[in-house]
Amino acid sequence: MNTFALVCSRCGVRQPFALKGVCSCGGTLLVEFDTERISLSLRDEIQGRPWTMWRYKELLPVSNISRIVTLGEGGTPLLRLERLEKRFGLGPLYSKREELNPTGSFKARGFSSAVTLLNERDIRKVAVNSNGNAASALAAYAAGCGMDAYVFVPKDCPGLIVEECLLYGAHTYLVNGFIQDAGAIVAEGASEQGWFHVGTLKEPGRVEGKKTMGLEIAEQLGWKFPDIVIYPTGGGSGIIGLWRAFLLLKELGWVQGPLPRLISVQEQGCEPVVHRFGGRDAQVGEEHVTASATGLRVPKPPDIELVVSILQQTNGHAVSVSLSEIEAAVQSLGRYGLSASPEGAATWAALLKLKDEQRITAGETIVLFNTSHAGKYMPWKVTQQTPVITSYHDFRYWHSRRS
Amino acid sequence: MNTFALVCSRCGVRQPFALKGVCSCGGTLLVEFDTERISLSLRDEIQGRPWTMWRYKELLPVSNISRIVTLGEGGTPLLRLERLEKRFGLGPLYSKREELNPTGSFKARGFSSAVTLLNERDIRKVAVNSNGNAASALAAYAAGCGMDAYVFVPKDCPGLIVEECLLYGAHTYLVNGFIQDAGAIVAEGASEQGWFHVGTLKEPGRVEGKKTMGLEIAEQLGWKFPDIVIYPTGGGSGIIGLWRAFLLLKELGWVQGPLPRLISVQEQGCEPVVHRFGGRDAQVGEEHVTASATGLRVPKPPDIELVVSILQQTNGHAVSVSLSEIEAAVQSLGRYGLSASPEGAATWAALLKLKDEQRITAGETIVLFNTSHAGKYMPWKVTQQTPVITSYHDFRYWHSRRS
Repeated sequence: MNTFALVCSRCGVRQPFALKGVCSCGGTLLVEFDTERISLSLRDEIQGRPWTMWRYKELLPVSNISRIVTLGEGGTPLLRLERLEKRFGLGPLYSKREELNPTGSFKARGFSSAVTLLNERDIRKVAVNSNGNAASALAAYAAGCGMDAYVFVPKDCPGLIVEECLLYGAHTYLVNGFIQDAGAIVAEGASEQGWFHVGTLKEPGRVEGKKTMGLEIAEQLGWKFPDIVIYPTGGGSGIIGLWRAFLLLKELGWVQGPLPRLISVQEQGCEPVVHRFGGRDAQVGEEHVTASATGLRVPKPPDIELVVSILQQTNGHAVSVSLSEIEAAVQSLGRYGLSASPEGAATWAALLKLKDEQRITAGETIVLFNTSHAGKYMPWKVTQQTPVITSYHDFRYWHSRRS
Repeated sequence: MNTFALVCSRCGVRQPFALKGVCSCGGTLLVEFDTERISLSLRDEIQGRPWTMWRYKELLPVSNISRIVTLGEGGTPLLRLERLEKRFGLGPLYSKREELNPTGSFKARGFSSAVTLLNERDIRKVAVNSNGNAASALAAYAAGCGMDAYVFVPKDCPGLIVEECLLYGAHTYLVNGFIQDAGAIVAEGASEQGWFHVGTLKEPGRVEGKKTMGLEIAEQLGWKFPDIVIYPTGGGSGIIGLWRAFLLLKELGWVQGPLPRLISVQEQGCEPVVHRFGGRDAQVGEEHVTASATGLRVPKPPDIELVVSILQQTNGHAVSVSLSEIEAAVQSLGRYGLSASPEGAATWAALLKLKDEQRITAGETIVLFNTSHAGKYMPWKVTQQTPVITSYHDFRYWHSRRS
């Protein structure tokens, strides 16, 4: 008997759990748990379990645990950054080391969850649009259970991430365009190809997997919330997942006190969330998208209203940083022994900016999320020929040649 | 009051703990714990601790825990490979995912430990010879506590690993030669430069850090030993560390039954351990070293007798595999969602060979160690100018120019 169902974040209507991401009203469907049916002793029971994200399985929408697809994701360190605290005069400061996940990024969590849900339903063909890490994560988890994966990334996706997708055996395509153009190709091909579209917010599993990051940091802080979380924001499903985690922990009574303030960081040159949070039009015309090719570059987040409302509800913020600031942060963090992806480093650049603007008080407990590591983003020319396509029509041409 | 001291693995003489690696008789000094002074309840106490290698701190030679240098190492997944078991008709099969460590390799453990010991003694300058991963690990852990690191790697070291060293701020030198030639430069410069030589078996901390891999797999298997461990062998300190772990667990009474059979795998073209295990001369003349540039390529392991005697004592084995077999294994494992370094993949190639030779019985529990991930080994041309040197004299020249 399931203790979970879907609820629309926009109109509030509930429906039985299914692999749907969008309500008939257009709002994002999220997973809701019947917390009264969750054992009071679960918080203690968890303690003895292996330290992966599936220690929280009763809080994840899985019905058949024998169908879980795992590569050992989650359970990443929450590293105290004492030397940085001293140097910069900041309150307790932590880095959540998401690069220490299978596939080297936090995307492992969303895909362990989503691929598990697909595996429970015997779906064998999956596709995703991505800026890179989601593609390599889908590729790995699909390979982990014998599913056929198709991944579509912008052609300037970091080459080492493309290499990863190829290593994991995904059908890999570079797209002349941005992540949403890749998404259009996946959507267009779904019917004919029979693949399940696992793009951002197309189904509920990925957000649920990301929720485990929030559950973990609370557990690692002794079932307490930090004051502030700074999270690199592209599509924003990480913000949604963290928020769901914190709400759930409150509802379960496992953590007391106010939710953390959620702060999004984006890169200048593609900052729709920052614009909308500031009350401005979020539209980023393609000609104005000048941000670098990382997970942050999402010109059209699928549900920007939801992401912005979460930032507002948590008394959070949204800030953008320049590529120079990001690159400087990668180097600075490296000199402290921390390998940060541009997205992860952006949280450090954001912290410095927020400190300068006095939006952060000394003594506040802050968690920065390091979503991946620096190595993947070293400039790299892919060694195998990988087709560059513009449309679903192009995909069909190449796919038939390569099959 | 310390519960640990040094014992010589060759002559058996005991001495107080110090940062020495070699006995006056020439044998390797190992760390011995007074197990009678270790609390009987420790095994249970450990369970509630954070899942990093320092959960075993009472079993590590640290006196001042406030001086521990950690980036969140250890606590890596032990992943059951059920699909591979079914496909190849093998007994319970696990992969210990050491690539999910800070710096992306198991070397993080040895250096968290060794750098901690140096930090306790206020040593601020360190140097290492390495085939790559040890260098980037030293670089990161030194950066993590503000030590000055000098790393020396063969000039054909994978470029992405060199980039890592640079990111972490290590003084990085490429050597015209093999790992032992780099070691000669470090040794020659120790007095004049005042750096502490953290090369293989030069001090006891690195082996102790590696010991935690053995402690973990026993814990993850429910305080049981696997039947077989297959471990990629360069210098062999991983074999030594695992052996120390298993002996300690027996002595503590935490695990019953025979030690696992330890099996080393090396690459054809540099297999001194395989030769010596087979009763042949271990000498690999430089002109005969044709193995690829990975952690396996150690033509002159510092204490080959000790490594071979451990393999013999555990009724283990030593096997070599070709580069082609390794490359095929990287690809095969990738198709199952696992990113394996050449060294890690070699354990898979070894398993297939041992199965063919019927050295492995169906039903035996086997643990393969994946020491790093595939991404680091993609062919890469380092972007910054990094000096190539042949001697300590060359080092002095470049160092003065760059300071």
